[in-house]
Amino acid sequence: MRILVLGGDGYLGWPTALHLSARGHDVGLVDNFARRGYDSELGATSLVPIATLGERLAAWHRESGRLVVPYIGDLCDPAFTHDVVATFAPDAIVHFAEQRSAPYSMIDQAHAVYTQTNNVVGTLNVLYAIAEVNPGIHLVKLGSMGEYGTPDIDIEEGWLEVTHNGRTDRMLYPKRPGSFYHLSKVHDSHNIEFACRAWGLAATDLNQGIVYGQETDETRLHPDLATRFDYDAVFGTVLNRLVVQAVSDHPLTVYGSGRQTRGLLDIRDTVECIRIACEHPASPGEFRVFNQFTEEFTVRAIAEKIRDAAGGDVTIATVDNPRVEADAHYYHAAHSGLVELGLEPHLLSDTLVDSLLAIARQHRDNADPSLFDPSVRWRATSSPVGPNAVELVA
Amino acid sequence: MRILVLGGDGYLGWPTALHLSARGHDVGLVDNFARRGYDSELGATSLVPIATLGERLAAWHRESGRLVVPYIGDLCDPAFTHDVVATFAPDAIVHFAEQRSAPYSMIDQAHAVYTQTNNVVGTLNVLYAIAEVNPGIHLVKLGSMGEYGTPDIDIEEGWLEVTHNGRTDRMLYPKRPGSFYHLSKVHDSHNIEFACRAWGLAATDLNQGIVYGQETDETRLHPDLATRFDYDAVFGTVLNRLVVQAVSDHPLTVYGSGRQTRGLLDIRDTVECIRIACEHPASPGEFRVFNQFTEEFTVRAIAEKIRDAAGGDVTIATVDNPRVEADAHYYHAAHSGLVELGLEPHLLSDTLVDSLLAIARQHRDNADPSLFDPSVRWRATSSPVGPNAVELVA
Repeated sequence: MRILVLGGDGYLGWPTALHLSARGHDVGLVDNFARRGYDSELGATSLVPIATLGERLAAWHRESGRLVVPYIGDLCDPAFTHDVVATFAPDAIVHFAEQRSAPYSMIDQAHAVYTQTNNVVGTLNVLYAIAEVNPGIHLVKLGSMGEYGTPDIDIEEGWLEVTHNGRTDRMLYPKRPGSFYHLSKVHDSHNIEFACRAWGLAATDLNQGIVYGQETDETRLHPDLATRFDYDAVFGTVLNRLVVQAVSDHPLTVYGSGRQTRGLLDIRDTVECIRIACEHPASPGEFRVFNQFTEEFTVRAIAEKIRDAAGGDVTIATVDNPRVEADAHYYHAAHSGLVELGLEPHLLSDTLVDSLLAIARQHRDNADPSLFDPSVRWRATSSPVGPNAVELVA
Repeated sequence: MRILVLGGDGYLGWPTALHLSARGHDVGLVDNFARRGYDSELGATSLVPIATLGERLAAWHRESGRLVVPYIGDLCDPAFTHDVVATFAPDAIVHFAEQRSAPYSMIDQAHAVYTQTNNVVGTLNVLYAIAEVNPGIHLVKLGSMGEYGTPDIDIEEGWLEVTHNGRTDRMLYPKRPGSFYHLSKVHDSHNIEFACRAWGLAATDLNQGIVYGQETDETRLHPDLATRFDYDAVFGTVLNRLVVQAVSDHPLTVYGSGRQTRGLLDIRDTVECIRIACEHPASPGEFRVFNQFTEEFTVRAIAEKIRDAAGGDVTIATVDNPRVEADAHYYHAAHSGLVELGLEPHLLSDTLVDSLLAIARQHRDNADPSLFDPSVRWRATSSPVGPNAVELVA
């Protein structure tokens, strides 16, 4: 298949592009380097050094003999988006190209507006490009388990059969997320479902859990193929961040009670889920939703697992929760759709944690411990450089 | 109370500002004249001539002895929004200031993106301004009954108690609307609900039905106080548009079977609903939703009522439905919240239709019949001046 990976220079977009290429697909990649720009803005860097996109693509060609074609530009530019889709002529478009940090979206008004505009407009432009160029292109869109929030009933895969006053309908699953970032993906889902209904497009919305890990079969072939390892409080996902704290003689910081439950998955499962979704497309007019995670953990359980694996005198510290979220809550979410299509999950193992700890130790000199602390508070509405900055949770 | 009306120069914002002022509230008004700009873009005008905002405000002062304070600017400008809220110091903000036409949002990619960006960013900026200036300000936000779509179960007022696998939760009512405009209001609702939850804001979301009528007790005091009377296929609401067709020797054009059922209300009830919502505010942290309509009709029933009232040889013509929507469908929507707070509905009467026909006859020389025809097709994704224009439904 011809597959265009939007956001193909990012943490997950890059390994996905490689994985699809390794499996014989013809892969194109779109990026505007926004993610590298956030590093500059926040004074952060990936713990593991990453090569430039040019170096990455050259290394992949050397290692695999395969070409991945880059297109550099912004999906918020409708002419660029249309032209890339028309030129590459994909069978499927995998859409990772969004601002993907909840704390980043909560920094202040400007970051909230940027996140929603960038994500919603980019996705609208992709929908229009598909509809105008070739409505048969299958859109595989990355959503988030965080879109659902923590309802007191079971979470299903995107749709819910509701019986009310004696009548029944299949409804979109009601969502109540916890950040302007997660809201942007709820908006996307509604827009995409409408495009499927009105224009007959075929889409798969993947509500992804929290990804951990940093290596895939493809990225480990050469250092220039490495993907990002974020550990800062803004972009670092919880497990990866705690691993870097563990090798930095820093307490593992858990927000609030740590009893918040989340769905997680291994980065190697992310790339497989995308492959499976592409190779088993949705039907014309179908808005298909999968919940893309493999296991549920409380944040405290993750911290304890890392503490135990790290050994030594690693401790767990509780910090005030900078977010507004339920502390302890019911959580039971369906995630059978991708397994039924063939996903064989990598469950979280001591081996994986050990290997992540080894990667983190190798690069720990790159870690800036000041980036561990949450600098964005949900209840503050001003800029972090404004008057509320003094109230930041340490 | 001090009440700031956003979009206060528009079809409903203007009569609402007058009504609140007449009831003794101190009213400020914000507008960027976007609605007058759409007229220029579409080559349309209000059937009833409308005065400039300056003339309107002067006339209101002459007639009532009361001042309404104008602030001219764009809510997408966060500094303007913040400064207006800080300067006027309202107790309540009534938010009409959105692009409100479904067909306009479906013209092409640019109009879809404009509609969602304008509406979502404006509302985000209002939320931030409230949170930063005074979280006690009550937001009264205009939504649409069209946000719900046409589910096969009863429509409730914003929330739905869902029982699933033996557990129960109060969820946001799932919405599946039929245009990028309606989707923008769904996005707004999600953002506002989050701001109530995270920041403790108090908001009332009014899912308004289709408004008909053109006069209120205040607007009829002087011709310079008149509000718009839109009859074009892009901005004209169905009943008003059919009335102008009836006095223009034009068939009453019904889309599809006309069996689509919609909730409607009289413009005099709109302004009363807003007053009631302002005077009975939501509680801090509450996201309160009312369905703001008084009666349900099929489109065909509306057309028949107007045909019968108009007399003569008025006919009803069926045109291909330019929209993607259910033709015949279940429709039963709750709308008791505002009645419980004191709304006394003006039900659609022959007298009202007669009076609207009289207004339309008085100004019929201003009507351009070419604007009756739907020029925007939901299934076309390109610009109406592009290659799809030849396919337009006549």
